Amino acid sequence: MILLDAAATTPVRRAALEAAWPYLTGTFGNPSSVHEPGLAAARGMTDARAAVARFLGCRSAEVVFTSGGTEGANLCIKGLALGAALGTALDAAGSHARRIVTTRIEHEAVLASVDYLARVHGFAVTFAETDASGRVSPAALRTALGTGTGTGTSTGTGTGTGTGTGTSTALLVTIGWANNEVGTVQDIAALAAVAHEAGALFHTDAVQAAAHLPIDVAALGVDALSLSGHKLGAPKGSGAVFVRAGVPLEPLLHGGGQERGRRSGTENVAWAVALAAACRELAAERAASEPGDAARDRFIAQVCASIPGVRLTGDPDARLPGHASFVVPGVNGETVLLELERHGVIASSGSACAAGRTEPSHVLVALGLTTDDASAALRFTWTADVEAAELEASVTALAAAVDATRALTAPRATPQRHRG
Amino acid sequence: MILLDAAATTPVRRAALEAAWPYLTGTFGNPSSVHEPGLAAARGMTDARAAVARFLGCRSAEVVFTSGGTEGANLCIKGLALGAALGTALDAAGSHARRIVTTRIEHEAVLASVDYLARVHGFAVTFAETDASGRVSPAALRTALGTGTGTGTSTGTGTGTGTGTGTSTALLVTIGWANNEVGTVQDIAALAAVAHEAGALFHTDAVQAAAHLPIDVAALGVDALSLSGHKLGAPKGSGAVFVRAGVPLEPLLHGGGQERGRRSGTENVAWAVALAAACRELAAERAASEPGDAARDRFIAQVCASIPGVRLTGDPDARLPGHASFVVPGVNGETVLLELERHGVIASSGSACAAGRTEPSHVLVALGLTTDDASAALRFTWTADVEAAELEASVTALAAAVDATRALTAPRATPQRHRG
Repeated sequence: MILLDAAATTPVRRAALEAAWPYLTGTFGNPSSVHEPGLAAARGMTDARAAVARFLGCRSAEVVFTSGGTEGANLCIKGLALGAALGTALDAAGSHARRIVTTRIEHEAVLASVDYLARVHGFAVTFAETDASGRVSPAALRTALGTGTGTGTSTGTGTGTGTGTGTSTALLVTIGWANNEVGTVQDIAALAAVAHEAGALFHTDAVQAAAHLPIDVAALGVDALSLSGHKLGAPKGSGAVFVRAGVPLEPLLHGGGQERGRRSGTENVAWAVALAAACRELAAERAASEPGDAARDRFIAQVCASIPGVRLTGDPDARLPGHASFVVPGVNGETVLLELERHGVIASSGSACAAGRTEPSHVLVALGLTTDDASAALRFTWTADVEAAELEASVTALAAAVDATRALTAPRATPQRHRG
Repeated sequence: MILLDAAATTPVRRAALEAAWPYLTGTFGNPSSVHEPGLAAARGMTDARAAVARFLGCRSAEVVFTSGGTEGANLCIKGLALGAALGTALDAAGSHARRIVTTRIEHEAVLASVDYLARVHGFAVTFAETDASGRVSPAALRTALGTGTGTGTSTGTGTGTGTGTGTSTALLVTIGWANNEVGTVQDIAALAAVAHEAGALFHTDAVQAAAHLPIDVAALGVDALSLSGHKLGAPKGSGAVFVRAGVPLEPLLHGGGQERGRRSGTENVAWAVALAAACRELAAERAASEPGDAARDRFIAQVCASIPGVRLTGDPDARLPGHASFVVPGVNGETVLLELERHGVIASSGSACAAGRTEPSHVLVALGLTTDDASAALRFTWTADVEAAELEASVTALAAAVDATRALTAPRATPQRHRG
């Protein structure tokens, strides 16, 4: 079996399991307890936090462990927006002073968090324009922020919000570093700088990027960054966020005050330690090898040469290594994938979080694809340990799968009038 | 080492780890993916959900997996309150039509969730009275709901809330089934019935009770119940809630729509499966053995006979098996615990979530203890596999530890004037 669906999830690294094991057996204390079993668990948290901080380029105190990427995005987006909004005097009408800027190609966790703020807290929402490859330019963000020369489109979707004005001050910009469906990578440092010029905080969803791109939150200039463990070889249910020191954060989980009051609840010590081990191993692998851009470009070229009519989606250059996404107009993506699985290759049509749904991808529609083309989407995503020969074999299998699918759906030469 | 701090956390059951293992190794798919690796993970979720539903006495569709007890309490309390509030037309002033009833002895996760609703959403909060043992009577709850003959005390703590009236309709009652610090067990069925008479929803935090008392949500009559995995032999980071079908629930985590839209985020499959295995094993143990009330009563009697001046806290009868809590006036609880640990016995002063803090327990203060007595608190909590001989040895160790602590702090017979 060749696994080309790493953007959906990855196998747990052996190093992550080995690091976690003591905390699932002998060292099972509650890190909040002051006796030795508790203190031993607390030491595990301290070491894990330091390792994740090194991976992110921040201080330990700026790391908050979460249960995954969705919690991370919810925590950063709602937490920063409410932290900023609650920290300022609210006007009587409420909504117009509160605005969030994002794009239409974000992950559902981002879009649904933004929608919650609009629906329940009266935030206005402005979507920055993306180009056909999914890139957001600094100029497009300036326009959305109302600090550029164009006009932003501002929509309030909640009760009591009406329409935003495009001139109210945005509290927060949230733009994903790399798109999960089409692999397009944003220039986060440039976008964060634009947000800061306008006085807004900046969060980036780094769930897809973290597995592929070195992270340095200082160089990126972001105020918050969220990542998921299971996209980079840590277990499902692990994750972490960076929140810059001094940035007000309204927690998502209130209670006993763990994680310096930013995420209450008994710590999942084993998964924090596992995430730290995965981050350590991933950083070491990166230091020891070339980025996977060449392998990706070769795979894309071979697919384009083998499949008549195929088109790459997303940006050809500014894209994740280990990410190739296409549409094959006229075929049904899900049918090709089933055929491909029979050939031993596991891929997907796009986001696993939306897999199995019948509506077309909101990302592909936002990039201007027709509904028909969006239903012909295929996504191949892989980790660094997938070998060149496996990628080559996958191209051959894909060509065969597309041929078989086209043969199934092509008009038959001789119409069959009698079925009985 | 004798572990008498099970209310803080428990070792992970071997059955839980064994059940989880396949989902951390070969069966690592994302349950939302439609290929075979994804479907295999989804089958694991389905089986786990069915097992937890059996443990709770509900339908599979009424189970939502969470990352633990704090998330569960936050989800149920905020989710039910906002679900009910957002489902109704809001009056212009907002706050007076929205009220929550709870008690002052709830876990921090409950109190802080309620405080969030007051602070950010303008809910009024009424605290039902507890007696000196921590029991809430149906009459006290009726009074708090404004449907009894007395008068409730209603406090609004958020911006824009002012004071509640005690006569506005409560949307939600949240009362813990068993108190973590003093072990007192409430008559949840009676309290839920009173809430329903008043038209309010009822949630119970069952984090402490779930490890000790059989659960049947139909018999309890609750609308929502939250539990934590790590209190009953599943890993930290596992948990589940029951939310009755048809009850509107505003999610805490918005995104891809996992868990039927009630808790987005890629499922922590391994921990869901581990929780299910722990629930199965715990239910089997309960069916095969007597409740631990007799062992608890013997332990309490021995402690009271061995330590001059000791007093039981909480209810002597309506209390969890495996839970004994005391104050030893005149000694510092933390000092006794350190001494006790030197004798090989691990216990605590109260909630692990507040361990290490210097302020007195909010629970003990609410029960009428003085600050001094609250600082003299000791809590012994254990699982069913702790043996009678271990409990007896712990009483002996406790008596020695209290003697040693008293000797340390007693006035010396001969004042020492010279130190050099």
